[in-house]
Amino acid sequence: MIHIFCLFVFLLSNTSYVTAIDFCVADLKAAETPLGFPCKSPATVTVNDFVFTKFIEGKPNIFNFSFTSATVNEFPALNGLGLSAARFDIAVGGVVPIHSHADATEVIIMQTGSLTAGFISSTDNKVFVKTLSAGNIMVLPKGLFHFALNAGKEKATANVIFSSVRPSIQLLDLALFGNNFDSALVAKTTFLDPAQVKKLKGVFKGSG
Amino acid sequence: MIHIFCLFVFLLSNTSYVTAIDFCVADLKAAETPLGFPCKSPATVTVNDFVFTKFIEGKPNIFNFSFTSATVNEFPALNGLGLSAARFDIAVGGVVPIHSHADATEVIIMQTGSLTAGFISSTDNKVFVKTLSAGNIMVLPKGLFHFALNAGKEKATANVIFSSVRPSIQLLDLALFGNNFDSALVAKTTFLDPAQVKKLKGVFKGSG
Amino acid sequence: MIHIFCLFVFLLSNTSYVTAIDFCVADLKAAETPLGFPCKSPATVTVNDFVFTKFIEGKPNIFNFSFTSATVNEFPALNGLGLSAARFDIAVGGVVPIHSHADATEVIIMQTGSLTAGFISSTDNKVFVKTLSAGNIMVLPKGLFHFALNAGKEKATANVIFSSVRPSIQLLDLALFGNNFDSALVAKTTFLDPAQVKKLKGVFKGSG
Amino acid sequence: MIHIFCLFVFLLSNTSYVTAIDFCVADLKAAETPLGFPCKSPATVTVNDFVFTKFIEGKPNIFNFSFTSATVNEFPALNGLGLSAARFDIAVGGVVPIHSHADATEVIIMQTGSLTAGFISSTDNKVFVKTLSAGNIMVLPKGLFHFALNAGKEKATANVIFSSVRPSIQLLDLALFGNNFDSALVAKTTFLDPAQVKKLKGVFKGSG
Amino acid sequence: MIHIFCLFVFLLSNTSYVTAIDFCVADLKAAETPLGFPCKSPATVTVNDFVFTKFIEGKPNIFNFSFTSATVNEFPALNGLGLSAARFDIAVGGVVPIHSHADATEVIIMQTGSLTAGFISSTDNKVFVKTLSAGNIMVLPKGLFHFALNAGKEKATANVIFSSVRPSIQLLDLALFGNNFDSALVAKTTFLDPAQVKKLKGVFKGSG
Amino acid sequence: MIHIFCLFVFLLSNTSYVTAIDFCVADLKAAETPLGFPCKSPATVTVNDFVFTKFIEGKPNIFNFSFTSATVNEFPALNGLGLSAARFDIAVGGVVPIHSHADATEVIIMQTGSLTAGFISSTDNKVFVKTLSAGNIMVLPKGLFHFALNAGKEKATANVIFSSVRPSIQLLDLALFGNNFDSALVAKTTFLDPAQVKKLKGVFKGSG
Repeated sequence: MIHIFCLFVFLLSNTSYVTAIDFCVADLKAAETPLGFPCKSPATVTVNDFVFTKFIEGKPNIFNFSFTSATVNEFPALNGLGLSAARFDIAVGGVVPIHSHADATEVIIMQTGSLTAGFISSTDNKVFVKTLSAGNIMVLPKGLFHFALNAGKEKATANVIFSSVRPSIQLLDLALFGNNFDSALVAKTTFLDPAQVKKLKGVFKGSG
Repeated sequence: MIHIFCLFVFLLSNTSYVTAIDFCVADLKAAETPLGFPCKSPATVTVNDFVFTKFIEGKPNIFNFSFTSATVNEFPALNGLGLSAARFDIAVGGVVPIHSHADATEVIIMQTGSLTAGFISSTDNKVFVKTLSAGNIMVLPKGLFHFALNAGKEKATANVIFSSVRPSIQLLDLALFGNNFDSALVAKTTFLDPAQVKKLKGVFKGSG
Repeated sequence: MIHIFCLFVFLLSNTSYVTAIDFCVADLKAAETPLGFPCKSPATVTVNDFVFTKFIEGKPNIFNFSFTSATVNEFPALNGLGLSAARFDIAVGGVVPIHSHADATEVIIMQTGSLTAGFISSTDNKVFVKTLSAGNIMVLPKGLFHFALNAGKEKATANVIFSSVRPSIQLLDLALFGNNFDSALVAKTTFLDPAQVKKLKGVFKGSG
Repeated sequence: MIHIFCLFVFLLSNTSYVTAIDFCVADLKAAETPLGFPCKSPATVTVNDFVFTKFIEGKPNIFNFSFTSATVNEFPALNGLGLSAARFDIAVGGVVPIHSHADATEVIIMQTGSLTAGFISSTDNKVFVKTLSAGNIMVLPKGLFHFALNAGKEKATANVIFSSVRPSIQLLDLALFGNNFDSALVAKTTFLDPAQVKKLKGVFKGSG
Repeated sequence: MIHIFCLFVFLLSNTSYVTAIDFCVADLKAAETPLGFPCKSPATVTVNDFVFTKFIEGKPNIFNFSFTSATVNEFPALNGLGLSAARFDIAVGGVVPIHSHADATEVIIMQTGSLTAGFISSTDNKVFVKTLSAGNIMVLPKGLFHFALNAGKEKATANVIFSSVRPSIQLLDLALFGNNFDSALVAKTTFLDPAQVKKLKGVFKGSG
Repeated sequence: MIHIFCLFVFLLSNTSYVTAIDFCVADLKAAETPLGFPCKSPATVTVNDFVFTKFIEGKPNIFNFSFTSATVNEFPALNGLGLSAARFDIAVGGVVPIHSHADATEVIIMQTGSLTAGFISSTDNKVFVKTLSAGNIMVLPKGLFHFALNAGKEKATANVIFSSVRPSIQLLDLALFGNNFDSALVAKTTFLDPAQVKKLKGVFKGSG
């Protein structure tokens, strides 16, 4: 009986039964396609490819917040799998400025402290704001402006997850003021006062 | 011989050969699903469902621009087909303010006149601006801030197309100032001066 | 000038600019489609639809582990968005038995304590096992057998996320022994001893 | 010990672990969406929903061929699953006329006899023709004209499969001649002689 | 205060915030995948990649029609974005012969003049024909035979858009007569008279 | 007139009309992407790429069953097309042990003999079992455990098709016992008796 099974195993392991794809760890050095990176050779993949070990608090910036990303760039095992994660640690008074992620929904999973988070719908510009604490999850639908700030009395920590292996992040201030976007054009297309544009161009090191 | 063919036709027309779906004209009164509207009964569909006849210049607003949309809302035949269109007529000096479309790429097909159009990438806040005239097509990748203005000497007309049957449109000024978004929160999350926020809240009829 | 902008806002708010979809909160009482539930009427949606407030430790079972799910069933705002979450609290010695999720990748985000987690690839039956602690994320690719156990010295807490709004969960023991699956058929198709099958049928309250 | 497991099973069966979707058998009476039919209530689904029992030779037409379809229309369990099947029995001399399936690849799995099958590429109008016999599979890429005929000496039987739950089928002759398509328009847009159009309009019972 | 912001910008520009993908301009020299071309290096992308400048009337052929395509082949910025465009200029009496696009819906946006356009459904061979003029848009659902002709009194110009970055185009006459498709096989699978096949083989330079 | 058509053909064959993609035969030597292999150069593709000629009974193993796969690995023309096939020949008493395919639905098309096939739902562990004979098709929804055995009196032959170009196959016994999966861990996570685990480790040549 045992002998029979051995043959069975032998047969199986020499057929196409054992060639199907389970994962596609990114080969970050190869050229991307619209749907992700080519796969690293499966023969070189080990369990360590599937574990990201630095999902820890980052170095706080002078605003007392830090973030750590685990997107396909830092964690190639996510390639083709459609989700990624980040960790935020926001000190009292810290602000994550208004930004949006094209084509990625974000879900905030609060760990400690509290955050006031919100998004603005595009259909009627309705503002959805809520103060979150541990035990709360909030959905920020894809593509909409959103923000968060720590209006509480202790540091806030949250895990956030995205429905994309690498969400784009367009930060309002950097898009308008942190580049060489012509100041007159900024003013015309935003209706901000030229003086305001000039001031923030200074703050965000933009030119133009 | 002819007799034989008639039978053949008869057989075919009584089988599942003739039941497959070619289109799914939206029943706009039914509840939407994440992937579109339920289909209107095929028996009631005529050629007129496939033709939208009002793709014409709209009434100019006081800024001397107008637009006409042909999304699934106005043109239900687009349901499930993944694209839609709009027409813009922009007078000299007209501005289409900064906005973004979550998950829809836009393509501008210039007809007459000229437009200065641009978008800002999220990866490095690089500004891509170009002045377009008849014979030019420009791609505005999905989810990114973009704008257009007529800096020319005559009216500009363009067809724009979207990779979505009904793109969401998030207009920066309306999202920040055209609603009850708390002014202090706007200032904190955008770094705009409170006075600037207050002024534009007034302009865009916002409160808060 | 202000007067002009008001008209502008008025014009915008009466056009298709403001009809596009930002989200599709599930109407759980309507019949599902292969791609999700029909949407709840947007007019009835509030910020509370986007916040799930019970993402807390569940009642420990006698194995000293608990879990709390936030799938589309408990959190309808996830409808159509392609991801969901759960929280696990596993006491020392606790085991999450071997199971798989068809078409959903799982990512474990460790919070406290440690877990030994693993999955088995289908291509060559290779076992990928790792002991995780706070700061570690592990990817369990879609569709593969996986498990976790707390071999540490304190309670382990983890958030897990899924690339599906409601992952199916097929637990090996319940699929084989927790139903009326004919025992002889189980033995024949698994090569387990009939006595073993009978014993576990008893444990998992199965019949047949 | 057994007592413990029973509690475990009890706990599991009262949670969202057991609510995920495994299948979505079509409710053919409900309105379709672009991605398929709403699901029949899972409570009413039995094993018989998953078995189609009439995948047998159909009644031969006077051309001595028959076909039997198992698409979502006849076999609602296919809803949302992306594939369907049909059986062809073609007598000596039988012809499956030129047709195409929008957005469905077809794969012919020969059972008995032989068939000469072919398709025409769109890129350079290259003709790919092959005579197939038992043990052969042929791929007919989606959307391209293809045909088959039995040039052998015995009946040919084949299973065909489609990458769609219900492929559309556009048959050249019926599209041109089996309807009220204006004959002058047919001639102009096909470059066929008016006399040829008229003749085939007669054969295929068309008018106009 | 300004100093603080500068640090903020610095921090952001050294993180994965700035690595996400906004676009994937095709590297046409690399091997395609089923979902598109690998991306050109983002560092080499400029605004000119996003602007196609030759969307102008082509050289009229002796039928007095011309067309100009902007697919991913001519306009690599469309890679991965799911849509493309073309311009048609059709003189009085010009005909765009019957053809189909596998898996691409076409939308005609009339500019000047008039066109009689139509498609044939596959489910019941119903003909949908309409004469279009400026201000009309018509949807031609994916995969179906369609055609257009200028039955008006002036040149007709239209922009057409496709729900594919590069629609395949299968033209009936070229598929049947513009290649080495065996004439006897053509006759058998289309029911055209052999003389008709022979004549059109001559016209379209086919052989066989 | 003929002269005119020739020019027409000439014009068409020098335009982008003839560049669209009809198929993407896999270049199996190139690195895979999450969505498939890069395409083989179209210039080297012939009709033989579209025909798989070895879809025949395999060599029976000592259990008297054989199988032959036609996945993208053996039949590169399937690349990007979303389906594949296999042939099973199962002698009296033969068993296809419990296994699952992540993200691939399987459809069994019975040819000769009879098979008892079944699957287990994940939502309530319900067992769906049916004895199939020629003329029956059975759907095994993606990701669920399933099995088949020949309880009849003659050899059974079936074609099976998958909604994937290369389904992964996770066989319960090989995943648990046919590798170096630590025996204590197997016992803990499956609740099988250690002696049972040890015995099957021996049978399936596992270690640990």
